[in-house]
Amino acid sequence: MNALGKHLLLELKGCNKEVLNDIGFLKGALLAAADEIGATVLGESFYQFAPQGVTGVVVIAESHLVIHTWPEYGYAAVDIFTCGNSVQPEKAVEILVGKLGSKNHSEIEMPRGILDT
Amino acid sequence: MNALGKHLLLELKGCNKEVLNDIGFLKGALLAAADEIGATVLGESFYQFAPQGVTGVVVIAESHLVIHTWPEYGYAAVDIFTCGNSVQPEKAVEILVGKLGSKNHSEIEMPRGILDT
Repeated sequence: MNALGKHLLLELKGCNKEVLNDIGFLKGALLAAADEIGATVLGESFYQFAPQGVTGVVVIAESHLVIHTWPEYGYAAVDIFTCGNSVQPEKAVEILVGKLGSKNHSEIEMPRGILDT
Repeated sequence: MNALGKHLLLELKGCNKEVLNDIGFLKGALLAAADEIGATVLGESFYQFAPQGVTGVVVIAESHLVIHTWPEYGYAAVDIFTCGNSVQPEKAVEILVGKLGSKNHSEIEMPRGILDT
C-alpha cells in the first residue's frame, strides 16, 4: 500500500493539566517535536482560550502538526501529518507523550492519499 | 459515546488540478467552508510549494481546517476538526467537494477525546 502521507492521530489522556494551558510550553514542545523528526518548519500559530485551553499549529514542509488541549480533562488531541520518507513522525509521539506527561495515550495511523495505480 | 471533538478526514480525488495549485482559490474555499459551518476564524496560513502543491490551515475557535494538495495527482487531503455543538462540519464537505471539483471522495469520521466517565 503506497500512500502519499502518513497521519498519526494521538489521544493524550492523563496529561499534566498546567502544561496543557501553557501556550509557551506547548509551542516549544511542538517545535521540538518537529525538529526531532527532521521536519522543516514553515510557520506556527498558537492561540490561548479562556478560561482555558490552547490550539496550536506548526506547518512543516512535510505537512503539519496540530494540538488542541482541554486542561480541565487533562486531555490533548494531537495530529502529526507527514509526507515523504525524510521524516520519522513516530519520534514525535514519544517526545510529546513525555513533555505533556500523558499517563494514557493511544495512537491511530491513517494513510492519506492512497492512489489508484 | 460522548466525544469532545469530531474529526472528519476527507480524501478528495479526481479534483480540478489547476484549482489544487491555486493558493488564493484554496484560501477562499477553506474560509468559505469555515464560514458556512458557522465557525469563528482566528487565523489562517497558506503556503505554495514548488513545483506545485499547497498547504493551508484555517484555525477556528472550534479547532481547525487543513488542506494539503498534490495537483499532479488531482488529490487533496482535507481535515475538518470541530468541537462543540454550534458548528456543523458536514456542510464543509459538500462545499469543498464542489469547489475542488472532486469526482471521487471519501470521508472518515473520527471522534476525538472520548473520556472515561
